[in-house]
Amino acid sequence: MRRAGPASQQGMRWANLALVLGEIAAEPRSRAEVAAATGLTRAAVSSLVEELLAAGLLTEPGPAVPSGRVGRPGTALALNPEGPGGVGAEVGVEHLAACVVDLRGEVRSWHRVEVCNRGRASAAVLAELAGLLRRAAEDAGLRTAGLTLAVPGLVGAAEGVVERAANLGWSGVPAAAELRLALRAAGAGELAALPIEVDNEANLGGLAELWLGGRPADFIHLSAEAGIGSAIVVGGRLLRGARGFAGELGHVPVRPDGPECACGARGCLEQYAGESAVLRAAGLEGVRGDWVALLAERAAAGDAAVREALAEAGAALGIAAAGAVNLLDPAELVLGGGYAELGEWLLPAMRAELRGRVTVRPWSDEWLTVSRLGRRGPLLGAAVGVVRAIIADPGRFATADQ
Amino acid sequence: MRRAGPASQQGMRWANLALVLGEIAAEPRSRAEVAAATGLTRAAVSSLVEELLAAGLLTEPGPAVPSGRVGRPGTALALNPEGPGGVGAEVGVEHLAACVVDLRGEVRSWHRVEVCNRGRASAAVLAELAGLLRRAAEDAGLRTAGLTLAVPGLVGAAEGVVERAANLGWSGVPAAAELRLALRAAGAGELAALPIEVDNEANLGGLAELWLGGRPADFIHLSAEAGIGSAIVVGGRLLRGARGFAGELGHVPVRPDGPECACGARGCLEQYAGESAVLRAAGLEGVRGDWVALLAERAAAGDAAVREALAEAGAALGIAAAGAVNLLDPAELVLGGGYAELGEWLLPAMRAELRGRVTVRPWSDEWLTVSRLGRRGPLLGAAVGVVRAIIADPGRFATADQ
Repeated sequence: MRRAGPASQQGMRWANLALVLGEIAAEPRSRAEVAAATGLTRAAVSSLVEELLAAGLLTEPGPAVPSGRVGRPGTALALNPEGPGGVGAEVGVEHLAACVVDLRGEVRSWHRVEVCNRGRASAAVLAELAGLLRRAAEDAGLRTAGLTLAVPGLVGAAEGVVERAANLGWSGVPAAAELRLALRAAGAGELAALPIEVDNEANLGGLAELWLGGRPADFIHLSAEAGIGSAIVVGGRLLRGARGFAGELGHVPVRPDGPECACGARGCLEQYAGESAVLRAAGLEGVRGDWVALLAERAAAGDAAVREALAEAGAALGIAAAGAVNLLDPAELVLGGGYAELGEWLLPAMRAELRGRVTVRPWSDEWLTVSRLGRRGPLLGAAVGVVRAIIADPGRFATADQ
Repeated sequence: MRRAGPASQQGMRWANLALVLGEIAAEPRSRAEVAAATGLTRAAVSSLVEELLAAGLLTEPGPAVPSGRVGRPGTALALNPEGPGGVGAEVGVEHLAACVVDLRGEVRSWHRVEVCNRGRASAAVLAELAGLLRRAAEDAGLRTAGLTLAVPGLVGAAEGVVERAANLGWSGVPAAAELRLALRAAGAGELAALPIEVDNEANLGGLAELWLGGRPADFIHLSAEAGIGSAIVVGGRLLRGARGFAGELGHVPVRPDGPECACGARGCLEQYAGESAVLRAAGLEGVRGDWVALLAERAAAGDAAVREALAEAGAALGIAAAGAVNLLDPAELVLGGGYAELGEWLLPAMRAELRGRVTVRPWSDEWLTVSRLGRRGPLLGAAVGVVRAIIADPGRFATADQ
């Protein structure tokens, strides 16, 4: 309830810069339309727009409309596609990726390499990633405002530190600092000078779904990457938890006396719907490489063992999801990451469990859907988050002392 | 990210009224101390304080300090104990209750009657409650600003309507409207004219814990009243869910193939830790009245069957809670409502399950604690919520057009 400080003229101007830029980000608008939509005076809008144009955040394409013509809107203002962009980076267990999006969130460059990072030293992984980032930035040719790194692990309260990424073998890795050093060593000085954030891939995948997937303000994104993760979005914001560890759906107990999990507990969801468990159930234990593509291919070809394994995984996902729905009452569940490509074979069993277990409130099969972003989600979320932060708080980029 | 409208002078003044009142609500302060704490000028603070005094929200006890004495603080300002109060009301399965708190949140009157409301018509229940409310209001002798009714059921998106309260046999009851009619019929015209809100008892119990129990901003409150409920508090706010149904911990699956639940699912937490299940396991099936007190008494007297039944319930609570902790990463779990009185026998098994199942993040036995408010929580939460809303937005109560 308490505010940090008194409302001030400076705070009001910054809030109004964000208000104006937010209107135009939603769709191109003339000054008059912005004034009508925001309730600000036209004079105030003009002054704020000048500041945003000067900062390179807006563009005013096309000739100005002749004055004196009644009822014609003025020139449309739009987000500047040559304005500051965002950089996304991703360390996966079996891949590295880098991308740049422009201020509108459109992808300007995208690089991905398949490489096994299991047990590889973080410095080597991040050195290779730095090279990829440098190429992505060169291709995009934009000035950039920040970089976010997606990792398959827990990122704790200490900024930029990966506390634990079991599938990589990382523990307590200061990934932001190491990546900055690697960028400098790779001759990418401009990138090395950016603010660098590190976040869990499931969180970023969920944010991508919120921003780009057309989702409502309250949903849960269930994803398989290296492990099983989830992102809980409440009122349009990611729920991060008291210590930043929320979303560990993979270790929700599904059958409390079930098989022992690597985490030390018994019957965790990962023992039924994680990579190793599904491959084992499908008779493909120990297979390496792209397990999602392999399962999708075999299931599509009619492989009964694979289909049965995916149905079992779907049932376990449904049991865990039913608990989450009863606790959190999301408007939707979204199956993302690798699961998105397996939706056809996971959904029926998952929906059956939800139908049978979510009974004290309305629930409909259609509220469980499949992500269109799939495995691209985390990297998109990383890059788009950077430009969304600019749009939410453009005062930081606008000319000072106005 | 979008704001509803432009920042305005009116909005600034209302925000600053709340800022000043919030400072003084935290502890009595002089005008100078408020200015120092908020960053507002002393002139601004004086003007805002005048408005809050005129509205009866503040009081300035004791004589003014003589001017000219350097370094002595001025008169302390405090919340006015005779300012507008809040009314709480509660329909339980086996009781009715009403209370009034003053602006400081202190209880001024408290009435409770034991009465079985199972299957009783809502009009009869609310007529009896109206009589209790009238007596509570007369005893308190305060003007009041609002009334909140706690119910053991789901309150949906439609304001004031109890969608379903299985233990009462209510379905689609417009409780706010019916209570208003009952208050009018009971001759309590002033109460009938108040804004009336209806909320789930577990939600209100959780809010009471947040406001009065000294809890951190992120915790989960697990409570037994008629059924099992929970309140999830994230960043100091109650998580209500997309449709207002969040917190149904009682129907989280604990053993997916377990006994059938009244909700139609199998193996829900209520089948292991709900009233009927625990009484059955303790050999006390069908006992009526205060089951919590009965179990606590027998367990204290060393009854082995009761202790075993509570240990089993604790284990089931621990399994469901472990899932919730892995998903939500709360700083604490709080055992409230009826469970608070059974903590001694529930905690050991519950802690053992949490210890074994919350392994991918830090977890400590001490983060599971017992509420001091216990079964008084929902009614306290109902009444205190009314006065907290005044303190958070005093502009509504202050003199107009300033």
